[in-house]
Amino acid sequence: MRVFELRDGFGLDRLRRVERPEPTPGPGQALVRVHACSLNYRDQMVVRGEYNPRQPLPLVPLSDGVGKVVELGAGVDRVQVGDRVAGIFAQRWLGGSLDAIGRASTLGSPLDGMLTEYAALGAEGLVRIPEYLTDEQAACLPCAAVTAWNALMEGGARTGETILVQGTGGVSIFALQLAVCAGCRVIITSSSDSKLQRALDLGAAEGIHYRDTPRWDKRVLELTAGRGADHVVEVGGAKTITQSLAAVRIGGAVHVIGVLSGAAAELPLTSILMKGLRLRGIFVGSREMFESLLRSLDVHRLQPVVDRVFDFEDTPAAFEYLQAGGHFGKIAIRIAS
Amino acid sequence: MRVFELRDGFGLDRLRRVERPEPTPGPGQALVRVHACSLNYRDQMVVRGEYNPRQPLPLVPLSDGVGKVVELGAGVDRVQVGDRVAGIFAQRWLGGSLDAIGRASTLGSPLDGMLTEYAALGAEGLVRIPEYLTDEQAACLPCAAVTAWNALMEGGARTGETILVQGTGGVSIFALQLAVCAGCRVIITSSSDSKLQRALDLGAAEGIHYRDTPRWDKRVLELTAGRGADHVVEVGGAKTITQSLAAVRIGGAVHVIGVLSGAAAELPLTSILMKGLRLRGIFVGSREMFESLLRSLDVHRLQPVVDRVFDFEDTPAAFEYLQAGGHFGKIAIRIAS
Amino acid sequence: MRVFELRDGFGLDRLRRVERPEPTPGPGQALVRVHACSLNYRDQMVVRGEYNPRQPLPLVPLSDGVGKVVELGAGVDRVQVGDRVAGIFAQRWLGGSLDAIGRASTLGSPLDGMLTEYAALGAEGLVRIPEYLTDEQAACLPCAAVTAWNALMEGGARTGETILVQGTGGVSIFALQLAVCAGCRVIITSSSDSKLQRALDLGAAEGIHYRDTPRWDKRVLELTAGRGADHVVEVGGAKTITQSLAAVRIGGAVHVIGVLSGAAAELPLTSILMKGLRLRGIFVGSREMFESLLRSLDVHRLQPVVDRVFDFEDTPAAFEYLQAGGHFGKIAIRIAS
Amino acid sequence: MRVFELRDGFGLDRLRRVERPEPTPGPGQALVRVHACSLNYRDQMVVRGEYNPRQPLPLVPLSDGVGKVVELGAGVDRVQVGDRVAGIFAQRWLGGSLDAIGRASTLGSPLDGMLTEYAALGAEGLVRIPEYLTDEQAACLPCAAVTAWNALMEGGARTGETILVQGTGGVSIFALQLAVCAGCRVIITSSSDSKLQRALDLGAAEGIHYRDTPRWDKRVLELTAGRGADHVVEVGGAKTITQSLAAVRIGGAVHVIGVLSGAAAELPLTSILMKGLRLRGIFVGSREMFESLLRSLDVHRLQPVVDRVFDFEDTPAAFEYLQAGGHFGKIAIRIAS
Repeated sequence: MRVFELRDGFGLDRLRRVERPEPTPGPGQALVRVHACSLNYRDQMVVRGEYNPRQPLPLVPLSDGVGKVVELGAGVDRVQVGDRVAGIFAQRWLGGSLDAIGRASTLGSPLDGMLTEYAALGAEGLVRIPEYLTDEQAACLPCAAVTAWNALMEGGARTGETILVQGTGGVSIFALQLAVCAGCRVIITSSSDSKLQRALDLGAAEGIHYRDTPRWDKRVLELTAGRGADHVVEVGGAKTITQSLAAVRIGGAVHVIGVLSGAAAELPLTSILMKGLRLRGIFVGSREMFESLLRSLDVHRLQPVVDRVFDFEDTPAAFEYLQAGGHFGKIAIRIAS
Repeated sequence: MRVFELRDGFGLDRLRRVERPEPTPGPGQALVRVHACSLNYRDQMVVRGEYNPRQPLPLVPLSDGVGKVVELGAGVDRVQVGDRVAGIFAQRWLGGSLDAIGRASTLGSPLDGMLTEYAALGAEGLVRIPEYLTDEQAACLPCAAVTAWNALMEGGARTGETILVQGTGGVSIFALQLAVCAGCRVIITSSSDSKLQRALDLGAAEGIHYRDTPRWDKRVLELTAGRGADHVVEVGGAKTITQSLAAVRIGGAVHVIGVLSGAAAELPLTSILMKGLRLRGIFVGSREMFESLLRSLDVHRLQPVVDRVFDFEDTPAAFEYLQAGGHFGKIAIRIAS
Repeated sequence: MRVFELRDGFGLDRLRRVERPEPTPGPGQALVRVHACSLNYRDQMVVRGEYNPRQPLPLVPLSDGVGKVVELGAGVDRVQVGDRVAGIFAQRWLGGSLDAIGRASTLGSPLDGMLTEYAALGAEGLVRIPEYLTDEQAACLPCAAVTAWNALMEGGARTGETILVQGTGGVSIFALQLAVCAGCRVIITSSSDSKLQRALDLGAAEGIHYRDTPRWDKRVLELTAGRGADHVVEVGGAKTITQSLAAVRIGGAVHVIGVLSGAAAELPLTSILMKGLRLRGIFVGSREMFESLLRSLDVHRLQPVVDRVFDFEDTPAAFEYLQAGGHFGKIAIRIAS
Repeated sequence: MRVFELRDGFGLDRLRRVERPEPTPGPGQALVRVHACSLNYRDQMVVRGEYNPRQPLPLVPLSDGVGKVVELGAGVDRVQVGDRVAGIFAQRWLGGSLDAIGRASTLGSPLDGMLTEYAALGAEGLVRIPEYLTDEQAACLPCAAVTAWNALMEGGARTGETILVQGTGGVSIFALQLAVCAGCRVIITSSSDSKLQRALDLGAAEGIHYRDTPRWDKRVLELTAGRGADHVVEVGGAKTITQSLAAVRIGGAVHVIGVLSGAAAELPLTSILMKGLRLRGIFVGSREMFESLLRSLDVHRLQPVVDRVFDFEDTPAAFEYLQAGGHFGKIAIRIAS
C-alpha cells in the first residue's frame, strides 16, 4: 500500500511516498481503508521535527483520517465491516480525564498516523461518522473540531455568551460554527476583509480586522458593553494572549489551543488573579467528547469548511499550502473513496 | 393605587380588587410602576390556598411582573429611574445555592406580589429587561423562563442533545425555545395536533401525541435510536414520571419542575439506580440565572409566546382561562404601559 | 481449577462448586490468580435470579475479586506479571459517563465473575492495589467502596458538610470512612447500639438508633441546627427515602445506591421540587473513580472493615451470613494467598 | 473613635492614627465594634499605593476584621445585636460568579476597611463566627482563609489528591490546614527548616527546602511517583510559576493567588496546552464560600495560626513585621475584646 513517511530525518523534503505491506488487524483491531485525511498545524510541526525532536523514525504523519472498516481482528464488537469511521486523536483517551497513557497514544506522533492507504487501529479508538458528511469533511474532525468542542463545550460555554475567536484557521472556524450551533454570539478576528465576510456568513455576529484595529481587545469591550467576552479561543499565543486577557470578562475563560505567534508568553498574572480568570490548556479531547460533537454536528447538519482538497500524491503541496497561511478552515487530502 | 388581594380567605372568588395607598420606596428599594404581569400554575395554587395554607393574609398574588422604575429609595445604584425591570422570583436568591432565606423571599407568597399598579422592591431583586421585548412578553419571564433555564442550562444541556418537553404550558414552551437556542433537539408531547404543529413551528424536531401514543416513552427511544433523551423537563408529576424515567438515557437527567397530575408518585428507584440517573428539583432560579437567560434572549431576539393578554380588571377571567388548560405558552395581564 | 457456578437455575442451593479448565489469557488480557472475593447485596440478587431473570447460565457469580497477575496475553502494557490487581465492576466503563456498553460489562452478571481460582480479564479492566491492604480488604473495594466514592466524591461532598449514612452494611461503612477521610461530619443510623458504637469509633460524629428514634429525619434536623444533611447515602429505598428527603437540606443531594426495603417508593415530588433537591442514582463507578479512590485509601491507610472471612469452599455459608443481616461492613471469601 | 487612615498620600509613614465620629448604621446596616483585624500582603500594597494608585483618600485600610454587632439599622434580619461577625472581603459578592459590582466592593480599598474601632457594614456583607475561635483567629479568615478555600475547594481538590503549597505565609498555611481537613496530601516548600518542621506538625506530608532543592518541581515529581501534584497553590508568581507548571500533573490545576516574586511571568504556554492544565485566578471568594469554610472550620475545630498579635496603636510595627517576611501564618491586630 502507499504511505508517506519520515524515514531519514525531519523536514518536508524528507517526507517520502513509499510502499509498505498492508497491515493485518490484530485482536481488538479494525483495518481501515483510509479515504481522506486532513492537515493540522501540529502535523506541520511533526514533519519539521519541532513537535518532538526525539520522535523515533520512521513515522507516518497525520493525526486525522477517515475511512471504511474493511476487516476486523478477533473480539471486536464496537464497529463492523463497512462502517465509516475516524480514528480518535489520542487512541487511549476514551473518557474522563487526560492522563499520561492517553497523552502518549496520539496518532501521527508518537504513533504512526493516517497518511496511508490502510491503517490497523484499535476498535476502541474509532468513532462512527454521520452519513451526511463527505469523507473530506469528516477527515477534518479528529483534531480541530474536537479541540474546538473541548474548549467551548467542556469549558462551559452557554447560549447567549460571547465567544472571541482568533483567526480563520481550522480550529477557529470550527469554534465559530460550534459556538453558533450552541446559541452563542461570536466575535472573530482576521487580517482579511474577505475572510471576515466569510465568517459573518457562517454566523459570526462581529468581525474585527486586527490590522486596522490593533487594539482588538478594546473593540471587544465596546462590542460587549464594557463587559468583555465570556470565552476566548486562544490560538495566537505569545503575541495575542495579553490582549485576550484584557478582552475577557471578569470570571471568564481563555482556552489555550494554539501558540502560532510563539509559545513563551510574558503573562500579566495580576490580570488572571484580579479578574478571577480561568486559563485552560486544551489537548484536543477524548472519544466521549468526539461522540458528543458528532451528535451535535448531525443534529445541525453542520458543514465543516474544507478550503481545498489535495490528492494523496500531492501531500507535500498540501503542507506548503498550509504553511502559506492563506487558507480559511481546513485542508484535506483525498486518498480513495 | 389598584391592587388585587386575598383578604378574607383563599379561592378565586375571594380575590378582591381594592385600593391601597401607593408605596414609598425605602432605603435600597425602587418603586416600580407595574406594566404587565403573567400567571403561573403556582399562582393558581396560591389563590386556592393549596400552595401554603398557612400563608398570612392579606396577600397580593403573582410572582411575575414587569414595569418601569419611577422612584428610588436611598442608596440604590443598581437601577435608575426609567429602567424597565422585572422583579426576580426569589427576591433574596441572587446567586450561588438556594438556601432557606432565599426560598422564603418569593413574590406572590409569602411576600406580596406583582398584581398591583406599584410595587416597592429591593433594588437587588430587580433585573433590567432587554428593549426588544414587549411588557407582556417580559412579564412572562421571572418564573417560567427562569425555571426552564435552570432546568436545561444549569442542568448541563448541550448542543446536539435531545430534550424531551412535556406539554405546551408556559415552562414547557420556554424550555422548547431555550433548548432550540442552545442547539438541542427537542421532542415535545401534547394531546393536541394543532399545538404540536405550533411547537414544530417553534423549532421542535418531533411531536408526540400522547393520547394517540400513550407509550410516548417507547416513541422517544425510537426517535433516539434506542438511546433515550438526554434530558426530560418533567411537568407532569405522578402520572408521567415513570415513563420519563424510561424515556431518558443511561446517565441522563430528569428535571422536576411541576407536578400537574399529582405530587405523590410511585417511583421505580431501581431505574434511577441502574441507569445512573439524575433527578433535579427545580425551584425557579437565582438572579444570576435570570441575567444569563436575558443575555441569551437578547442575542436570539427570542419571542416569548403570550397566548392571551387580559386587562388588569379581568384578572379573575385570566385565572379561569389558565385553569381551563387550553393555552399554549403564557397568559399575561396588562396593567399600564 | 475450582469455580462456583449457577448452572441449572437460580437459588443458593443451585450454586455448585465445579471444576473448569484454567483459562488462557487472550490478546489484551491478563490471567489473574484470585486470592479473595467479597459479597455484595447485588450478588445475592444475582444468585436468587432477582437481578436479571434472563441471565444466561452457567454463570460464575461475584463482581468483586482480587489477585495476582500470573500471565499476560499479547499486547498488554497496563499491568505486569506479579501485580496485585482487582477487576473493576464494569469492565468497559473506564472513565467519563456511563453508557450502555459499560453497563452491560459488569462482572458476576452478565459476565462471569470472580468466584473462581483464575480469571482472564481485559487488562484495561484491572486496577493495581496498594500494598498496605490485605487481599480480603482489597476484595471489598470494587463494588461497595467505588459506589460510596461515586456517591460522595463525584456527588460533590466537601469538608465540613454533613453526610447521613443509613445502616452499617458494606457501602454504608465505606461511605462513613470515606466521608471521614474527606473531612465531613457523619451521622449514621442503625438499629443496634453496638453497631452505632463501632461507627462512632470509626469516626462518625453522631449515631441514631432508628428504632428508638423512628423519626430520625427530625433528629438529623436537630443535629444540624435545623439545616438538614448536605448529602444522604440512601440504601433503604421504599421505606426510608421519604424521610431522607425530609432530612436533607435545601439544595442537598440524596444518592440512591440501594433499595433494601423495596424498590417502588411513593415519593413526594413536591419536596424534591420545593427544596431544589438532587437525586442521583449510583451505578457503582468507573475505573477512573476506582483509581481516585485507591489514591485516597493509600494516603489515609484506610482499613476496610471486613466483618468475617469465609473459606472458598464455604461460600454458601457466606451468602447465608449476608442474608442474615447481622454483619458490620463487608463479608469476604478467601481463595488462595 | 480611633481609626487609622491614609490621608495625604500613600506609604506606611502616612498611615495616621486619627479620631473619627462613630458611625450610625443606616438601613440594612449593622454597626460592628471591631475586636481584631489581620494583615494581608494586599493591605501592604494598598498602604504603599501599589494596589490602586488612583484610590481616593482618605482611606481606612485592612480588609479583615471581626467584632460584635452593637446596633442595627432598619430592616436587618440577617444578624442580631451581640452576634460576633466578620465582614466579607467583597461586600457585594454574596454567591455565584464574581462580577464588576462585586469586585468593586472590597473592604480596605476601594471601600473603607476594618482598621477602626467601629464599622457600619451592610448586614448582607457579614458572616457569623463560630464560638470556638478567638477574635484574633477569626480576624485572619476573610481574605486569606477564603482565598485558600476558593483555590482548593472550588477548584475541586479531593481526598487523596496531592496539593503543593508554596511557602508559609497566611494563605499558604490556611491552604495546608484546609487541605489536611479535606483529606489531601500536602507538600510544602520553604527556605527555613524550622518552618518546614512546623508545617509538618500541622499535617503536611512532605517539606521541601527550596534553597537546598532549587529544582523543587523535580522533587515533587519524585514524591508523586512521577505523576505530579494535582493542585498547586501558586503564591510566588514570576519566579515560581514555570516550576509550578512542571510540578503539576497532566490535567492538574494551578491556582494563582499571589505574585510575591513578580507579576509579569514568562509562561510556557506549550506546557499549559500539552498537559491540559487549568490556571485559575483566585480573587478571594464569595460569602457563600466563606460560610462553607466556616462550617468546615467548626467541624474540625481548626486553629488558624496567628504568628503574632499587635496592639491597635502598634499597627505600623505590624506592617513592618509583615514586610520583614519572617512570619509563619498570620499577623493580627487587637483593637478591643
